[in-house]
Amino acid sequence: MMRTRPLKVALLGCGVVGSEVARIMTTHASDLAARIGAPVELAGVAVRRPSKVREGIDPALITTDATALVKRGDIDVVIEVIGGIEPARTLITSAFEHGASVVSANKALLAEDGATLYAAAEEHGKDLYFEAAVAGAIPLIRPLRESLAGDKVNRVLGIVNGTTNFILDKMDSSGAGYSEALDEATALGYAEADPTADVEGFDAAAKAAILAGIAFHTRVRLDDVYREGLTDVSAADIASAKRMGCTVKLLAICERAADGKSVTARVHPAMIPLSHPLASVREAYNAVFVEAEAAGQLMFYGPGAGGSPTASAVLGDLVAVCRNRLAESTGPGESAYTQLPVSPMGDVVTRYHISLDVADKPGVLAQVATVFAEHGVSIDTVRQQGRQDGNGEASLVVVTHRAPDAALSGTVEALRKLDTVRGVASIMRVEGE
Amino acid sequence: MMRTRPLKVALLGCGVVGSEVARIMTTHASDLAARIGAPVELAGVAVRRPSKVREGIDPALITTDATALVKRGDIDVVIEVIGGIEPARTLITSAFEHGASVVSANKALLAEDGATLYAAAEEHGKDLYFEAAVAGAIPLIRPLRESLAGDKVNRVLGIVNGTTNFILDKMDSSGAGYSEALDEATALGYAEADPTADVEGFDAAAKAAILAGIAFHTRVRLDDVYREGLTDVSAADIASAKRMGCTVKLLAICERAADGKSVTARVHPAMIPLSHPLASVREAYNAVFVEAEAAGQLMFYGPGAGGSPTASAVLGDLVAVCRNRLAESTGPGESAYTQLPVSPMGDVVTRYHISLDVADKPGVLAQVATVFAEHGVSIDTVRQQGRQDGNGEASLVVVTHRAPDAALSGTVEALRKLDTVRGVASIMRVEGE
Repeated sequence: MMRTRPLKVALLGCGVVGSEVARIMTTHASDLAARIGAPVELAGVAVRRPSKVREGIDPALITTDATALVKRGDIDVVIEVIGGIEPARTLITSAFEHGASVVSANKALLAEDGATLYAAAEEHGKDLYFEAAVAGAIPLIRPLRESLAGDKVNRVLGIVNGTTNFILDKMDSSGAGYSEALDEATALGYAEADPTADVEGFDAAAKAAILAGIAFHTRVRLDDVYREGLTDVSAADIASAKRMGCTVKLLAICERAADGKSVTARVHPAMIPLSHPLASVREAYNAVFVEAEAAGQLMFYGPGAGGSPTASAVLGDLVAVCRNRLAESTGPGESAYTQLPVSPMGDVVTRYHISLDVADKPGVLAQVATVFAEHGVSIDTVRQQGRQDGNGEASLVVVTHRAPDAALSGTVEALRKLDTVRGVASIMRVEGE
Repeated sequence: MMRTRPLKVALLGCGVVGSEVARIMTTHASDLAARIGAPVELAGVAVRRPSKVREGIDPALITTDATALVKRGDIDVVIEVIGGIEPARTLITSAFEHGASVVSANKALLAEDGATLYAAAEEHGKDLYFEAAVAGAIPLIRPLRESLAGDKVNRVLGIVNGTTNFILDKMDSSGAGYSEALDEATALGYAEADPTADVEGFDAAAKAAILAGIAFHTRVRLDDVYREGLTDVSAADIASAKRMGCTVKLLAICERAADGKSVTARVHPAMIPLSHPLASVREAYNAVFVEAEAAGQLMFYGPGAGGSPTASAVLGDLVAVCRNRLAESTGPGESAYTQLPVSPMGDVVTRYHISLDVADKPGVLAQVATVFAEHGVSIDTVRQQGRQDGNGEASLVVVTHRAPDAALSGTVEALRKLDTVRGVASIMRVEGE
């Protein structure tokens, strides 16, 4: 049943992921051929630095002209692992125009302009697969797009950025501050030289946009995702979480509103109880909970990044796309039929942990409690403690019940204006209960 | 783009799972139609007791003649949730012959004779999907068949039977004996009136056969799976595990041999360290680790049984199969090209925890250690303790290093023959390190 004419693959990008994809395509060629039903052949590799030695790749395949490679016309599948918006977008749409299907790991582009890519794929009757764009090797896109296609997903919540999880894990286990933990992450190769995309939450927000769109069958773009990074998380925040029996994680949370008429997507640090399974996700691992109406609560866990795990996801997609080409069919395309709007952060219902520095005198708690009540926010617990330094200050730690984020942030603004409140030492959302 | 002529679905079985499938097909009809690209219509429901009231199902659809239903010729997809070998096998092959694709939750049949079903599906160019056969709603078959299709899976290890996990969890948390815990499981509906399939490990062994076959691209049948149930697990075993910082779980373990030339599949109780993620899988939940060469270690967790979760898996498959029909294509069929043989249990490399009642006199330990050495089994730890009852007996707890199971069981047989060994109180494998 094996077809002998090989399917031709063009690889755009040959860095950490691309070189691993090329290596596995070579070393596991017979397995891939058996699983696809035809051999696959690396027909070209577009790189920026052609002089670099690339072990195991025929130098004749190397080109700096990615544009010409995707336009060759004989390419069956283009694997895009260069990342970023341009030239990736132009190359991918050009690939579709010239008859290729595409496997991409490009979370930024999919979150920014997935609709354009989907439309181009559909127009030309080609596949767009991108399991590697979210959570590395962990199967997440396919389970959401296919396994749960008969269910109604209400919530996706997880750790989708390994760098920030490594940093928070270090802060939690060693008591280190943010900068110190970041330095260690950089030294160990978990953080890039410019860590902005990770630590400011852009990477996680792009993944949240992709997951929310697929989970809720609607369009969610990066701009729709509320985003807070972890650069403001202090050792004191972590210590405060510990006192509450919690730890701090950078979470991506996608939710369907209770009335079902809108969705939200957000990325921010949050306190979660130590008993929550996500609390024990260590180092650079990722883990994602999916809550669906019939399935209940599912969890997916694994390495969220790295060359080999990401290559595994890319190659799984490659096999699927090649099978589809042999069958002259395509897999599922964009599913955005619900057209559910994305609500702003203010509409999200959540809980706050607020730590206040207040004047240590009678009546302060009553004053503070009044502000919460005026904003319709009810208090779950409050802990008041006089300071040891005898400067007339005390600290007040309030954990709220669930309330709209707008009411919670309004409360904090009003608290800041109280004379008796000297400062807001820390604000953090509480999740996972 | 929506096709208006509906796809016709025949449902075989309308028990806990079937009735939930029918309910969701009705209540979520428009979502299913949007995701498939055509409406789906329940065209017939085969049951054993037609007089039973089935809310939400048109009585005109009910039939006792499943054979006639699958032969109607206008059925697009047959959903088989009756279980067991016959008449399920004949009905499924007949469905293929009469033009339908099949979604099945039948682990027993797939493990017993999956090859016949695959062959019938392929002969007639139809789909055979069975996500619901293993671990309920947890996507596992699709990730193994598709997401990891470009990777090399070396190990699948997990808890795939909710009933036995519930029983072991109860024994661990309450100190209850097996019978008491089983009674509680039965009372709460976690165990069936006849619990044999669960407690003797047949259910888990069937799932292990299915997982091993898919993971290693070879044929593995129920008979190839080594199987020990948990009926011999005592409160003393659980207590012994606790003293070692372990708990006892019924594990399904599928492994590729170190030389890559054979595979093994087995189900048995095993001690695992409390630090292992599987140790914290409570009640009737399931969790499965998959270790692949490039992806690394992945974990999938969720409800492993129950009407709604199983229906979620069935409906995900229904959407996929319907999409394939509209595209006039089929999904992946059997992949057994590696033809790797399944080795017997004796070849499996594992560790034993052995608790011996021995004569409390000098030289016993030396004698026992000699038996281990003669069988090529090296000892990791040994704990000797004199009994309080002063009857001249002591107990000796030995944990071995890794060795072939045949050497380990040979060691135990030889120990039994020693005069100084009064009895073997407990033997259990140790996994997860």
